[in-house]
Amino acid sequence: MQNVTLKVEGMSCNHCVKAIEGALEEIGASGKVNLAEKTVQVEYDENKVNVESIKEAIEDQGYDVV
Amino acid sequence: MQNVTLKVEGMSCNHCVKAIEGALEEIGASGKVNLAEKTVQVEYDENKVNVESIKEAIEDQGYDVV
Ligand SMILES: [Cu+2]
Ligand SMILES: [Cu+2]
Repeated sequence: MQNVTLKVEGMSCNHCVKAIEGALEEIGASGKVNLAEKTVQVEYDENKVNVESIKEAIEDQGYDVV
Repeated sequence: MQNVTLKVEGMSCNHCVKAIEGALEEIGASGKVNLAEKTVQVEYDENKVNVESIKEAIEDQGYDVV
């Protein structure tokens, strides 16, 4: 398993947390949002998912990965 | 039809807008959230819904009517 922590702009509430964590789950990754630090910590299987698809899943929810 | 505009704290994103407008729809009222002004403008039939139940529907979503 690999870990990556992304800086994400635009997350403001628990709905945002669920939207992002849910979108990551859908691509087979596991995310943990920290609203205060504006980060998303993602654990993923590098044989199934890559960082680009993780970023895309987050951006598709309307947030900016910076 | 009656109209009331409530000041609501804690709304931060479009998910909040949908949560509140959806909850009002469920009790048969029609709400319009203004995130910038922190207000919810509600139109309702006073024979079916009252202000107390409107406040309750909003608070049940986790927001404070002030
Ligand atoms: Cu949100
Ligand atoms: Cu929100």
